[in-house]
Amino acid sequence: MSDSLTRPHESVGDAIHGLARELWPIARSITGDGVRRTLEILGRELPGLRTVEVATGTQCFDWTVPDEWNIRDAYLVAPDGRRFAEFRNNNLHVVGYSTPVDETLSLDELTAHLHSLPEQPDAIPYITSYYSRRWGFCLSQRQRNALEPGEYRAVIDSTLAPGSLTYAELVIPGETRDEVFLSTYICHPSLANNELSGPTVTTYLAKWLLGLERRRYTYRIAFVPETIGSIVYLSRNLEHLKRHVVAGFNVTCVGDDRTYSYLPSRAGDTPSDRVAIHVLSHIAPDFARYSFLDRGSDERQYCSPGVDLPIASVMRTKYGEYPEYHTSLDDLSITPPAGLFGGYNALRHCLLALEHNRTYRTAMPCEPQLGKRGLYPTLSTRATKDIVRTMMDILAYSDGEHDLLSICELTGVPIWTVLETVEKLVQAEVLVPMDEETSRAPSHQPATVQ
Amino acid sequence: MSDSLTRPHESVGDAIHGLARELWPIARSITGDGVRRTLEILGRELPGLRTVEVATGTQCFDWTVPDEWNIRDAYLVAPDGRRFAEFRNNNLHVVGYSTPVDETLSLDELTAHLHSLPEQPDAIPYITSYYSRRWGFCLSQRQRNALEPGEYRAVIDSTLAPGSLTYAELVIPGETRDEVFLSTYICHPSLANNELSGPTVTTYLAKWLLGLERRRYTYRIAFVPETIGSIVYLSRNLEHLKRHVVAGFNVTCVGDDRTYSYLPSRAGDTPSDRVAIHVLSHIAPDFARYSFLDRGSDERQYCSPGVDLPIASVMRTKYGEYPEYHTSLDDLSITPPAGLFGGYNALRHCLLALEHNRTYRTAMPCEPQLGKRGLYPTLSTRATKDIVRTMMDILAYSDGEHDLLSICELTGVPIWTVLETVEKLVQAEVLVPMDEETSRAPSHQPATVQ
Amino acid sequence: MSDSLTRPHESVGDAIHGLARELWPIARSITGDGVRRTLEILGRELPGLRTVEVATGTQCFDWTVPDEWNIRDAYLVAPDGRRFAEFRNNNLHVVGYSTPVDETLSLDELTAHLHSLPEQPDAIPYITSYYSRRWGFCLSQRQRNALEPGEYRAVIDSTLAPGSLTYAELVIPGETRDEVFLSTYICHPSLANNELSGPTVTTYLAKWLLGLERRRYTYRIAFVPETIGSIVYLSRNLEHLKRHVVAGFNVTCVGDDRTYSYLPSRAGDTPSDRVAIHVLSHIAPDFARYSFLDRGSDERQYCSPGVDLPIASVMRTKYGEYPEYHTSLDDLSITPPAGLFGGYNALRHCLLALEHNRTYRTAMPCEPQLGKRGLYPTLSTRATKDIVRTMMDILAYSDGEHDLLSICELTGVPIWTVLETVEKLVQAEVLVPMDEETSRAPSHQPATVQ
Repeated sequence: MSDSLTRPHESVGDAIHGLARELWPIARSITGDGVRRTLEILGRELPGLRTVEVATGTQCFDWTVPDEWNIRDAYLVAPDGRRFAEFRNNNLHVVGYSTPVDETLSLDELTAHLHSLPEQPDAIPYITSYYSRRWGFCLSQRQRNALEPGEYRAVIDSTLAPGSLTYAELVIPGETRDEVFLSTYICHPSLANNELSGPTVTTYLAKWLLGLERRRYTYRIAFVPETIGSIVYLSRNLEHLKRHVVAGFNVTCVGDDRTYSYLPSRAGDTPSDRVAIHVLSHIAPDFARYSFLDRGSDERQYCSPGVDLPIASVMRTKYGEYPEYHTSLDDLSITPPAGLFGGYNALRHCLLALEHNRTYRTAMPCEPQLGKRGLYPTLSTRATKDIVRTMMDILAYSDGEHDLLSICELTGVPIWTVLETVEKLVQAEVLVPMDEETSRAPSHQPATVQ
Repeated sequence: MSDSLTRPHESVGDAIHGLARELWPIARSITGDGVRRTLEILGRELPGLRTVEVATGTQCFDWTVPDEWNIRDAYLVAPDGRRFAEFRNNNLHVVGYSTPVDETLSLDELTAHLHSLPEQPDAIPYITSYYSRRWGFCLSQRQRNALEPGEYRAVIDSTLAPGSLTYAELVIPGETRDEVFLSTYICHPSLANNELSGPTVTTYLAKWLLGLERRRYTYRIAFVPETIGSIVYLSRNLEHLKRHVVAGFNVTCVGDDRTYSYLPSRAGDTPSDRVAIHVLSHIAPDFARYSFLDRGSDERQYCSPGVDLPIASVMRTKYGEYPEYHTSLDDLSITPPAGLFGGYNALRHCLLALEHNRTYRTAMPCEPQLGKRGLYPTLSTRATKDIVRTMMDILAYSDGEHDLLSICELTGVPIWTVLETVEKLVQAEVLVPMDEETSRAPSHQPATVQ
Repeated sequence: MSDSLTRPHESVGDAIHGLARELWPIARSITGDGVRRTLEILGRELPGLRTVEVATGTQCFDWTVPDEWNIRDAYLVAPDGRRFAEFRNNNLHVVGYSTPVDETLSLDELTAHLHSLPEQPDAIPYITSYYSRRWGFCLSQRQRNALEPGEYRAVIDSTLAPGSLTYAELVIPGETRDEVFLSTYICHPSLANNELSGPTVTTYLAKWLLGLERRRYTYRIAFVPETIGSIVYLSRNLEHLKRHVVAGFNVTCVGDDRTYSYLPSRAGDTPSDRVAIHVLSHIAPDFARYSFLDRGSDERQYCSPGVDLPIASVMRTKYGEYPEYHTSLDDLSITPPAGLFGGYNALRHCLLALEHNRTYRTAMPCEPQLGKRGLYPTLSTRATKDIVRTMMDILAYSDGEHDLLSICELTGVPIWTVLETVEKLVQAEVLVPMDEETSRAPSHQPATVQ
């Protein structure tokens, strides 16, 4: 088993990158047809993905679902009649949630609506204004510097009107009603590491989960617009999630191939945190370790007081920590197949660790006699010695209190390397899994929630 | 609010020093008129200060209130008729609690009654003998070396007779019956850092408390002779103190301007310890951190088994740790106004931290929408970014379990810098203070104790 | 009292070494007459030592008592008729539990039955094969290299037949039914540090215990063959041991004079671990500190899940960690009297620490007045100052929760240096021992177990 778990799936990296390329041109925002189109494509990959529309004006805790934004076109016209900052060339050119406009302005008047980055003169910044009505254009500093005085025309063909916010969820049933929750966001336009790596890697994690013969946990996977979407989702599912979710991850920035990162849940010591640290310690020992004070994505909601879900983040390079972040430079060239596969693989190992982390007890006092059961290698080599040592250590600590993960932490080995040995010991009836009922409270509600 | 809390009060340092100068000449001991005169002056500063007399012979736990000691004069007469070691010049010249004497002795006989410090030849040592009847004189080694053989006369005009031990207490009522307890001692004669800094700084802390518009806690402030006085005080108030005192400090050595020091309570993790470490970490990060094994003042009684009050010490240079300690060199020149103000200010911030350290919870799950409440700055600057971050961190950790102090410890900011922000969040009804009932047990006794 | 506790007993080292010399030639194994002869000699030293025979075939948890092995002679005959690898010269020459043999073989055929150590050409290795029937000879690599082709004769005059496994135990009653358990093994043939140091040091610990006027604990001391013997012992006494044993040690490798070592119990924080660390920190501060992962002796059984006894190991150089381990070089020259005395002395101090580690409370709130009880030295010297400080520290922390050991850990002094002071404070009735009932559950069983 462990072989198939750790064997590189380079082709998976290519497939994830292909899906990201398909989603790349779509102009996503926190509402609108871009989100719908994105979820439609993901739904093609994930049978069972269910799309939910939540009407504008719906109250969600302290927030209200805003008007839906849709945009068809946008551009600026220079005094010489030349169009530039065209939405059709790059959807970052328009400030997200810009109100419609078609007016003529002097360069001075236009300037109040322009955004650029003096320190990154070739990058178009990514700017939004969801809750304060305005319009604006983003362009590179170099382009901006070249603007001559004169009359400009600004055109944004957008609508801001009652509609709905769209999200999707997929529930993959397991043997227990305990749930592992994955959340990722689908509200950024053409941005690669800080957007498309999230939903595409999550899609391939879901495909892998769907293909497993057995799943101990039920998996709940949400594709939501960031912040407002996670708040909407929580407002509709809070009690269910609090009762059933035993671990989970916010999946973001899992595509570039520079480093690995971990941002804890607020509690810091949940199963999610334990497996994240375990996995990264073995596959990327120099991973960057952040504090919950460095939070910035939907863990802000999932770990907020009163919600308190065990949600951590396992990332490649964290949002805000790489130079291309929130600019047009965050494109698919910085999320190569190997980068995306790395993010996928780290999270897959986290899920594996969760699935297989059980608590065992030995079947009798004292060490069992392994020899009479054929568990002692007859030929003694370095490799068999390590296997015997692992076997004895698992037996020595399987006291019904140490779970397998804590035994692996004590002995310094990755949990995925001992699964075969554990299986042998269970089959030899010297190791017995403890009954586990981890859902936080008895529940008679159906597992499917709205 | 935070401005007024942190603004320097240099004039307070001068005022404390002035009070110390007034108290300087008085010959204090653990009993007697020197204590009474001292408390009379403090009572002029602190309306409500109540003086208590406890008769000689009163049993207090394992101790008995001793005879009262009063002294009118003392000196030695040299063979040439010259007086020296005169009590009127320096009250340290007489061993505290010396029995009366008027006799003529050879230099050899006199020597058994003389105390000096070979390593500090210009210093008069401070010596007492409360529980073993003797008499003696203290003088500088230089003066002692100059003594010629011959007949000396020793005169001590003292009385040791049944009377009483005197202490004083001030109770400043607050909104709750939970108490903060301050204790300081008034039994050393003319000594500055290790005596007068204590009662004078405590007096100005009491004045500041009396001037506050609101006090969450009731403050109980005791001026007692060291050791026997705190034992007497505890023997009369133990049950009340154990029930109501939630924090407190023994105030001693708060006047020299060299360093800051912290000596923990025996438990080590009381609210007093937490605020002491918090305050000193911010206002004097290189403060000296002692162990309870280094104890030496009334925390020996307050933290003794069976008493177990949460009493820590925040000091400038600790007793025993500076060269002038317990000698005539510990005079007002080593406790300048800036030194006394420093001790006052550190303790005042500890009391502020106690007053304002509440536990809050957020009013709803998920982050509140600060924008619609005008709590999000419209102009984004470095400073406003920090304010927003502080606001979000307070909200993120206000889970009804983390108190404000622990949130400030997590985020590394002084508690007094976030009070304004907390107040805004409370007024905006996104943050809710938890009900707090911290007195250790219900009580139907009157708050005033004898 | 502390003087007699810490005074060197060099003669004890000589006596232990003498006993080891007497036991040296005996061919011990996990069963057989060598074990019986060994226990007979120990029984002469320890009146009350009870020998127990457990029949071949007895089921003990997952194990079965094997056939008994006895050996009378063994040797190889070279082609030139010369005998070598003679059992009578060194009982390591025969693989333990070798089946009987008398056959002629070519050098090639013989080779499959020979064991030597290329890296230690002068050492005879120690090899056994308890559960897989075979025969073999061990010899030095140098001797092996000299073998010429030709016909060899192999003779082993052994028997493997139903019989019994032999162990012994000694119970030394104390004031309580709480037990301290010592276990050591008697199954290795002529090996010194990793065998004879164990039973000989344990014998002298038992003699010392028998000579004590008072014993707070009952001592249960087991001499067993390693692994199978401890499993047999546990299978017959498990409930009693789990109920009564509060601390204990597996005594092995306590004879060489190189270093001191500590291997924790599985729990790691039992009284045994606490006293082991305390004692070694004071008598050998640079002691080697192992992990339970480094286990290799009977703690594997005593600390196994379902057994969970508080058994740690205090050793000189640990098995497996010195070059002579499990070879003929582990002879009595590497366990000199000073080495054996060191092991004995370290364990004796551990037992002393256990005996005297009580929890006390002070008799009254606040510090007692030591002066009126004559506990305050009248002459103040450096030494008396330390005594007073120790007295005050013991009183300051005797709150009914800190035991004496934890107070000594806080203050950094060995527990055996404060026993006299504690005794004085108890006699002065300022310190009161807490009632202690440490047996894990009430029991109406007789203290003697089968």
